[in-house]
Amino acid sequence: MHRSFSLLALLLIAACATPERNDTDVRQIDAFFDEALQKAEAYENLRTLSYEIGPRLSGSPQAEASVQWTKQVMEDYGFDRVYLQEVMVPHWERGPAEVVRIVGQAQPLRALALGGSEPTPAAGITAEVVMVDGLDAVDELGEAVRGKIVFYNRPFDQTVLQTGRGYGTAVDQRTQGPAKAGEYGAAAVVIRSVTSSMDDAPHTGTTRYAEGGPRIPAAALGVQSANRLVEALEADPTTQLYLKINSQWHEDKLSHNVIGELRGSEHPDQVIVVGCHLDSWDVGHGAHDDGAGCVQSMGVLRLFQQQGYQPRHTIRAVLFMNEENGLRGGLKYAEEAGTSDETHVIAFESDAGGFSPRGFGVTASDAIIQQMRDWLPYFSPHTIAYIGKGGGGADINPLNRQHGVPVVGLSTESQRVFDVHHSENDVFENVNRRELELGTASMASMIYLIDKYGLPE
Amino acid sequence: MHRSFSLLALLLIAACATPERNDTDVRQIDAFFDEALQKAEAYENLRTLSYEIGPRLSGSPQAEASVQWTKQVMEDYGFDRVYLQEVMVPHWERGPAEVVRIVGQAQPLRALALGGSEPTPAAGITAEVVMVDGLDAVDELGEAVRGKIVFYNRPFDQTVLQTGRGYGTAVDQRTQGPAKAGEYGAAAVVIRSVTSSMDDAPHTGTTRYAEGGPRIPAAALGVQSANRLVEALEADPTTQLYLKINSQWHEDKLSHNVIGELRGSEHPDQVIVVGCHLDSWDVGHGAHDDGAGCVQSMGVLRLFQQQGYQPRHTIRAVLFMNEENGLRGGLKYAEEAGTSDETHVIAFESDAGGFSPRGFGVTASDAIIQQMRDWLPYFSPHTIAYIGKGGGGADINPLNRQHGVPVVGLSTESQRVFDVHHSENDVFENVNRRELELGTASMASMIYLIDKYGLPE
Repeated sequence: MHRSFSLLALLLIAACATPERNDTDVRQIDAFFDEALQKAEAYENLRTLSYEIGPRLSGSPQAEASVQWTKQVMEDYGFDRVYLQEVMVPHWERGPAEVVRIVGQAQPLRALALGGSEPTPAAGITAEVVMVDGLDAVDELGEAVRGKIVFYNRPFDQTVLQTGRGYGTAVDQRTQGPAKAGEYGAAAVVIRSVTSSMDDAPHTGTTRYAEGGPRIPAAALGVQSANRLVEALEADPTTQLYLKINSQWHEDKLSHNVIGELRGSEHPDQVIVVGCHLDSWDVGHGAHDDGAGCVQSMGVLRLFQQQGYQPRHTIRAVLFMNEENGLRGGLKYAEEAGTSDETHVIAFESDAGGFSPRGFGVTASDAIIQQMRDWLPYFSPHTIAYIGKGGGGADINPLNRQHGVPVVGLSTESQRVFDVHHSENDVFENVNRRELELGTASMASMIYLIDKYGLPE
Repeated sequence: MHRSFSLLALLLIAACATPERNDTDVRQIDAFFDEALQKAEAYENLRTLSYEIGPRLSGSPQAEASVQWTKQVMEDYGFDRVYLQEVMVPHWERGPAEVVRIVGQAQPLRALALGGSEPTPAAGITAEVVMVDGLDAVDELGEAVRGKIVFYNRPFDQTVLQTGRGYGTAVDQRTQGPAKAGEYGAAAVVIRSVTSSMDDAPHTGTTRYAEGGPRIPAAALGVQSANRLVEALEADPTTQLYLKINSQWHEDKLSHNVIGELRGSEHPDQVIVVGCHLDSWDVGHGAHDDGAGCVQSMGVLRLFQQQGYQPRHTIRAVLFMNEENGLRGGLKYAEEAGTSDETHVIAFESDAGGFSPRGFGVTASDAIIQQMRDWLPYFSPHTIAYIGKGGGGADINPLNRQHGVPVVGLSTESQRVFDVHHSENDVFENVNRRELELGTASMASMIYLIDKYGLPE
């Protein structure tokens, strides 16, 4: 097991600071939490996003609908400024459902093409299967995989306590596996879904082909389906798999980041961002990933508004487009930020699932991290219990890398997220109202403190 | 909002102690977590308990089946000693489903008789409704409630971060409301379900009549049904409710606490208890409440066994019968403990739902609490992050009160438990494998440290 004790060390530093709490701030932060828990507007917005729009892959009609709808929500709230930022996004479509079948077995395997996968020929691909436990094994096999379907079967490491790290133990097979197998002439790839779940829902996610390299079709199998394939191979090493993927790549498409602001009373050109990604994979509702972060980001501004609190700095919700398969929204936002007169104080992102908030992961100077730790006494240990060093979010990290903007990721209780992530089970019903709203209020509270007191240089 | 900062203070004390960790202990604790997360035997036991036995109200055939099955599980594991402790339990049955209807409306309200409720007459009760926000309001109304159905409508306070405390803001209406309304001659009681959920599943739970006092029928309404009744009363204050409850009280019945032990190598007569309650309400699966605690308690011993670790003290899993409506199992165990030569080092209980473990709540001397805090560095802050002062469990508290035994309750992430507690939604599917198993391993790890190093006097 790989357990991290570093956070305890952080707690040590944090908790040994003398708690000093200002009554006004305590009341304001309590009010954020009360409002969020009682009105649950973010949760109700997530219901609408999930059921009236649904999954929102970049370039899809649903992605466009989500742009228009979130813009409308923020306009209806009467935020000071609501606008769209143009961004060209990749446009991949799954097409009719993929079929993966063990030759000779009637019941197909549960499968989803990986995001960005090339289609198979119309007749599908039938080939023998080479089961491997990772990329190195393919390098070792080399030409032996030519014409075969490579089956990446290394499971998610269940012993890792923080499931984000568990995910990291297996996800390279999805992101790089098809490119690697393609190098040696494999016909296609299937992978064991990268998930903590034991059910049979397949989990998709992006795969990256090498520039100019072979582009072979690739799909994720549900865990139980992967087990069936293992059994079949154990019984007969010459087992063949039939694979049919009907995906299509289209021209890049115009889409948008959706932006809403409360204008700063003292420093309108100094911006605090709270963001998320509006796109999702094309299955389930994209509820945790990352509908949750989007309704929370809009919800942070809404809490300020409902409290009648006028921020000193501009507080900006940014709903980034295309995190899942291109990051174009995050890159575009950072690019535009470089051409503007405004400066960014700090950027938050919520993209860890709408579960109970546990901490903030911060990429910033030690002084800023220490300042945020000094504010921990304003939070209940039942919500924000630690400020971790390192963290951010895919969409806001370019702001940090390109412009040195401090970035913060909301850390949430991690045990459930990879059960549902990128699968048909990432639906509204799997989001808990209270857990989601605690995240909204936690971000609003930290942003309130930063807005009021500023951050050290 | 009523947020507790006391835990932060505890963290302070805990975290400022110098972490000293012994490599052997780190490896042993890692091994407990690895084993629990990989094998998930507690989770699989919970599946069986949920689906092959189901809900287990004291006196029911399912309660008896759960006694036999858990005994068999521990015998099959080959624990050193497995036995039953006789206990007479109250025996109440719901009978055919209750009916609650607003007179003039076709669609009935979702309702469950409170546990222990008297039945209505066979023809049911039809009466006007008096809506109140608590017990005091009934005292104020006095004779005005005579012949009426009292509707306790004060909701669960959503703003409280720890939902156990939120539950405490409303549950007196269930436990004492019928007795109070009965004092003034009310015909019956309905209550808004004591839940954090907004759905319409009614949540039952015990009600207590006064000794020799009136015993009027009482039921809980689903939250949406309670809202419907509020609307009906706002439209027409003379709205009548029809209530039919078919419950029956039987003679007390012989049942059992189920006990399994690993015998201590050095101090066989010094016992560390890890317990739960095996009975549940008669709806759902009783999965979180408290099937989870029972499979964890058996699982703690199983982890020791699987690791080949021979404890110095006797480690005893006690699956108490009748926590929900009588506490007879806990009282019987404490009574027997008073007549035995053995002593109890400490007793743990898991009865907060099988969610992610967060801490231990301890009722013990300051020296013991400090000792447990000194061990916090052995735990990841992603599991056990605090040792709280105060806590225990309904079934083990008599050991503390009568014999001064230190008692410890496992604290879990609390946001979801009162969504499902005592309702049809407390089912296996709402328990997460990883979260459940982290609880098992957390208790095993703390018990290991106590067993190895002992506790201060």
